[in-house]
Amino acid sequence: MPRVNVGLLGFGTVGTGMVEILINNRQLIEDRLGAEIVLKKIADLDIVSDRGVKIDPTVLTTDAMEIVNDPEIDVVVELIGGCDQAMEYVVMAMERGKHVVTANKALIAEHGKQLFETAEQYNVDIAFEASVAGGIPIIGALREGLSANQIKAVSAILNGTSNYILTRMTEEGLSFDEVLSIAKRLGYAEADPTLDIDGSDAAHKLAIIISLAFGRPFNYEDIYREGIDNVCPEDIGFAGEFGYCLKLLAIAREADGHIEARVHPAFVPLDHILANVKEAYNAIYVEGDFAGPTLFYGLGAGRRPTGSAVVSDLLDIARNHIKGITRRVSPLSFSRSPAKELSLKPMNQVITEYYFRFSAVDRPGVLSKISGILGQNNISIASVIQKGRRTHGSVPVVMLTHEAKENDVRKSLELIDRLDVVTEKTVLFRVEKKTGT
Amino acid sequence: MPRVNVGLLGFGTVGTGMVEILINNRQLIEDRLGAEIVLKKIADLDIVSDRGVKIDPTVLTTDAMEIVNDPEIDVVVELIGGCDQAMEYVVMAMERGKHVVTANKALIAEHGKQLFETAEQYNVDIAFEASVAGGIPIIGALREGLSANQIKAVSAILNGTSNYILTRMTEEGLSFDEVLSIAKRLGYAEADPTLDIDGSDAAHKLAIIISLAFGRPFNYEDIYREGIDNVCPEDIGFAGEFGYCLKLLAIAREADGHIEARVHPAFVPLDHILANVKEAYNAIYVEGDFAGPTLFYGLGAGRRPTGSAVVSDLLDIARNHIKGITRRVSPLSFSRSPAKELSLKPMNQVITEYYFRFSAVDRPGVLSKISGILGQNNISIASVIQKGRRTHGSVPVVMLTHEAKENDVRKSLELIDRLDVVTEKTVLFRVEKKTGT
Repeated sequence: MPRVNVGLLGFGTVGTGMVEILINNRQLIEDRLGAEIVLKKIADLDIVSDRGVKIDPTVLTTDAMEIVNDPEIDVVVELIGGCDQAMEYVVMAMERGKHVVTANKALIAEHGKQLFETAEQYNVDIAFEASVAGGIPIIGALREGLSANQIKAVSAILNGTSNYILTRMTEEGLSFDEVLSIAKRLGYAEADPTLDIDGSDAAHKLAIIISLAFGRPFNYEDIYREGIDNVCPEDIGFAGEFGYCLKLLAIAREADGHIEARVHPAFVPLDHILANVKEAYNAIYVEGDFAGPTLFYGLGAGRRPTGSAVVSDLLDIARNHIKGITRRVSPLSFSRSPAKELSLKPMNQVITEYYFRFSAVDRPGVLSKISGILGQNNISIASVIQKGRRTHGSVPVVMLTHEAKENDVRKSLELIDRLDVVTEKTVLFRVEKKTGT
Repeated sequence: MPRVNVGLLGFGTVGTGMVEILINNRQLIEDRLGAEIVLKKIADLDIVSDRGVKIDPTVLTTDAMEIVNDPEIDVVVELIGGCDQAMEYVVMAMERGKHVVTANKALIAEHGKQLFETAEQYNVDIAFEASVAGGIPIIGALREGLSANQIKAVSAILNGTSNYILTRMTEEGLSFDEVLSIAKRLGYAEADPTLDIDGSDAAHKLAIIISLAFGRPFNYEDIYREGIDNVCPEDIGFAGEFGYCLKLLAIAREADGHIEARVHPAFVPLDHILANVKEAYNAIYVEGDFAGPTLFYGLGAGRRPTGSAVVSDLLDIARNHIKGITRRVSPLSFSRSPAKELSLKPMNQVITEYYFRFSAVDRPGVLSKISGILGQNNISIASVIQKGRRTHGSVPVVMLTHEAKENDVRKSLELIDRLDVVTEKTVLFRVEKKTGT
């Protein structure tokens, strides 16, 4: 039986998941593949700790270069994380004719262009299914399953920690801080959850999705980002009253040669399938010009789901290897740069609907002042809720708008927040109805 | 630029969708593929009607054999439907070294074994993404995206017509017959909707899913089938009171070397993601041993979504063709018959939870008689609703059970329906909580 020799860099959580699958599902993989996947070497600084998987201790090494330089190794799996070292090893591996599988979203999002060029130069495959949405085969769907389509829009829940926190806040009415400490205790949030809750993690994944959808590397820095740390139960409550829930959405949309790219908390209609993606689940809602709307849902993180994606990439590369070919599908699914030119739509040109919560003194004429400013800036109001008096003399005035331009919204809120009847900075959330079916 | 020559058999709805994509997205496809897909010939008995797509009339022929015998044609797309003629042409095409793409679920479900053997014998590819769930790339997900997993269970909504009807019945409280006539008028149901509403269509698709999940052709006749024509608004109402909705589910589950395979209306918990698959949408909920639960959702039928699946198969085969290889992945994703033996679990051995609606005379002691028989047959009751008096002297007694064996349920209901206090045949639905996340 043919063999494919694999070297693993980084024996952490995901690495352990991958090894578990190669052991537990060895028979299944051989039945599918008609070949054997041999884990020849594992490099990690810690080769002592027990990961709970049975491996021959002689495969362990602390020297990553033993893998990079091993002429018998066909595929290098990079699960170190971070950018510096990982980049170095991955490039060296490709220079030595080895294929690469990685789960490293930062690496692909920030250095994709260079990596894909290196892979082309050395005629090797680079696969990264595990870098976006864990066990959900979304990379495969965008590269191959939906390959007949121009992708028009993607709206996605890409960060499990944020989705877990928003779900608990919604269902139990707790504050962000209260839920965050629960999430840390239960392992849904890391000790330092910054990258999860400030939108960076979702933005990395969105950059990869955009590059696949539109066939060209996309600069992750170009993605507008807001996190969920300012979400409070009050706004979640109002969202519910209007028929929405609050989700951290990653949105990309193409129109007239421009791409919108943004990650922020957003109102999602309760009858939309994305509204029902709860707890730590991820989901990607993709609109193709012919397939129409599709949704891909599952566990976006964790040892086992991410391991599943890594091993499916191994099978994919192994299938090429067995047939003696490489680069059957190029990393971004496009064998040449797409003819269609696309430029970034600046955030202030984005058009969507909005939710505002104004903190105003409870006095006649306040609503007319606020709505006057909105009207002068082309923002038309769809509905208003004004609740009864508060003890501290200030009441929330809550509003949904029709479609408006971000720039007009910002200008208006600047003026409104300067009014003497307005007591606090206005809260703003974008209302994403276009993702509706 | 390399070319892949395609011949199309059957210029109906899906054929038109495919042609539309090849015209509208020609540039995109060439950018992705680095090759040209040339539609060389189209065979149909009707070559006169205007399909609304611009094609060179010289590609049209009424003689399918012109395509089958054309040595320049690399891929034959079969969109004739039905089994007899389609089978004949597909086999002849493969015998002449041509790859085949088909959207024909009946063909794959009923003749898959023979087709896959023929494809192997002549070393050609046979692709059928369009045969299950239209634009949703579920075949690709099962063959490749989840290839590291043992598939433990699949619960799916595979028939758009049934799902549309159940959605309208639920939201408007209308009867099956009322909604069916609306669905026919709006084009959601065909003039003769039998195969859609009796579960046959879903069973064909489930047979294909099972064969992919478990790596061996599965006899479609072995699938237990019940349709939705007996669903009435009363039961949908009770489902809602218990926190469920009613869906036509296609279920496959593997345990201890046995496969359950059944299509029937079922109660689905309202907080399950499948409960939110509404209107004519399809969705497949797949549980892998490592990926965990995943859901694939989208439009399961129609010219454009099904066309999308056909063209993605064309790209897949073209990518092999360009590299000079065939059969990179075998049709069921297994390069040899899986080691694991699986046998069919007979329906009467299936264990699930149940909903019963008894029609009983409103008299003391009735509930005790019914529950006595259930108890004697190892069926334990989870909850009961008994509503007030009806004018015709008979009241519904509604019950949810804990897990019970189908055989015990059938025995009990036979005894209960013979009681003189029971006035009508008991209504039964299975409650599928195991599909819960």
